[in-house]
Amino acid sequence: MTDPLPSWRDGAARQSIEAFVTAAATEGGPGFIAPAERIAVFDNDGTLWSEQPLYFQFLFALDRVHALAPTQPDWTTRDPFKSLLAEGPAAVAKLGMEDLLAVMNATHSGMSTDAFGDIVRAWLSSARHPHTGKRFDTMIFAPMVELIRYLEGHGFRVFIVSGGGQEFLRAWVERTYGIPPERVIGSYAGLEYGAQDGQPVVMKTAQVGLVDDHAGKPVGIQRFIGRRPAFAFGNSDGDFEMLEWTTSAPGPRFAGLLHHTDGAREFAYDRNASIGKLDRALDAAPARGWTVVDMARDWRVVYAPD
Amino acid sequence: MTDPLPSWRDGAARQSIEAFVTAAATEGGPGFIAPAERIAVFDNDGTLWSEQPLYFQFLFALDRVHALAPTQPDWTTRDPFKSLLAEGPAAVAKLGMEDLLAVMNATHSGMSTDAFGDIVRAWLSSARHPHTGKRFDTMIFAPMVELIRYLEGHGFRVFIVSGGGQEFLRAWVERTYGIPPERVIGSYAGLEYGAQDGQPVVMKTAQVGLVDDHAGKPVGIQRFIGRRPAFAFGNSDGDFEMLEWTTSAPGPRFAGLLHHTDGAREFAYDRNASIGKLDRALDAAPARGWTVVDMARDWRVVYAPD
Repeated sequence: MTDPLPSWRDGAARQSIEAFVTAAATEGGPGFIAPAERIAVFDNDGTLWSEQPLYFQFLFALDRVHALAPTQPDWTTRDPFKSLLAEGPAAVAKLGMEDLLAVMNATHSGMSTDAFGDIVRAWLSSARHPHTGKRFDTMIFAPMVELIRYLEGHGFRVFIVSGGGQEFLRAWVERTYGIPPERVIGSYAGLEYGAQDGQPVVMKTAQVGLVDDHAGKPVGIQRFIGRRPAFAFGNSDGDFEMLEWTTSAPGPRFAGLLHHTDGAREFAYDRNASIGKLDRALDAAPARGWTVVDMARDWRVVYAPD
Repeated sequence: MTDPLPSWRDGAARQSIEAFVTAAATEGGPGFIAPAERIAVFDNDGTLWSEQPLYFQFLFALDRVHALAPTQPDWTTRDPFKSLLAEGPAAVAKLGMEDLLAVMNATHSGMSTDAFGDIVRAWLSSARHPHTGKRFDTMIFAPMVELIRYLEGHGFRVFIVSGGGQEFLRAWVERTYGIPPERVIGSYAGLEYGAQDGQPVVMKTAQVGLVDDHAGKPVGIQRFIGRRPAFAFGNSDGDFEMLEWTTSAPGPRFAGLLHHTDGAREFAYDRNASIGKLDRALDAAPARGWTVVDMARDWRVVYAPD
């Protein structure tokens, strides 16, 4: 038999995953889950791909600010754009919520969803990560993609539940993770049906929608899936409520937390991180029976070889 | 070979459906659609079940107003509740948008999504249609359920895209149509993550969300599916934009309109109806290549036998 999880070392984390998933698909056993109820949800940033030194979507937004700056002459004198143009990623990390929203609106709205998808894909094909020099969509975690396929092989429907932008994610996750757009839940602003050159389009607007993080994650899950997941995986305190919601109902439930312990192969951070802080959820894990995956210890491979 | 559409009479409508669906699944042929792109969307009220003399969900809301009235003493003197309690369904039909919203909020929010689902199912099991005396969930159209199965058998993912309430629909459509909750798009108000008796819950709130009708349907489709459908079916002008969005892109596309022509077995209405008005879309159908299904002529059976 071929190992379905070749990038996972043997150990408690892998064993708890395998025990849960095989039991879920074993009819008549104590861990059986009816096929209709086999819903799995995954955070994206820091869970399926890296998120340091800054969420990759923020680096995309920064690149878009530079690309759009020639058409927005007042940005050179107007914050937050002025600081972003002058200081780069360091300035993004310092943005308050209101300024961040202004930057996201300026770079993520005012075009059709089709046009936005094209912009994201063009960026992904040319942009490179500031530390690794890799394409961002090659900085996905091979063990997690194996886990998604493993769950699907046991009848699970797998969804992404991300604080990242829904349309940003949809532009590349089908090709990269094999997850279709209707299984991508993310943060979003507004959409509006209209026409361009006589053809119907759906336009992205700046109107506020869902912030799919913390308590927004169970809300997004209920809105899009309408059923409580049986399996959830995250890596930060922003995933706490999603894991809590998943595991606080009766029946077999699994929650996993990826602990970024591997400064050599990826990044090492947890309680004091400004991006992907893992503190409350790490403390809660033992009592709640959540499985903590130690990247350095549990993963044979982090990124798939180029 | 068993007929997959036994409730459909032979004729132009059935033939256009069969030609499209078999071509979509015929690799190498001119009508082939890649499996990932095989998305089908169906309106619900008047397309999958009846909608006369009033959307069934409005009859549910009216029954809830009666059930809740003893705890709301001021309703006997305060409109719109006063009129609803005194006059019944006729008063519902006359409600303006603001009053309708007040009634929907009073009957559809302030409880958890789980509790609301229980209320809907309890109502469905006891309520009866004012004309037919049938349970509402037996007033579903057998030919359309066959069509859903037929599409699924050819690799389509089938979604409901309804002006009705998303959580109202989810309470019964999985059992009735075999469509899981994550494929139910509907109108919605707010959701909020909270706690009841120390347990996490998702509460329904009155905050305005999506009105999934007219231009709201392409918006709902993009929000939930993230991809343009290849197949769409509706029955009223509220479905116009959904059919337009579906059929205005290149590639094989199918749009169907159910024309309620059968006053003997169901209800006969179109251009002058106050519920389910079909006028603009009926006029547009020939030039746009939309298939019009004539209920009296094209269907051997309307409701499945009890």
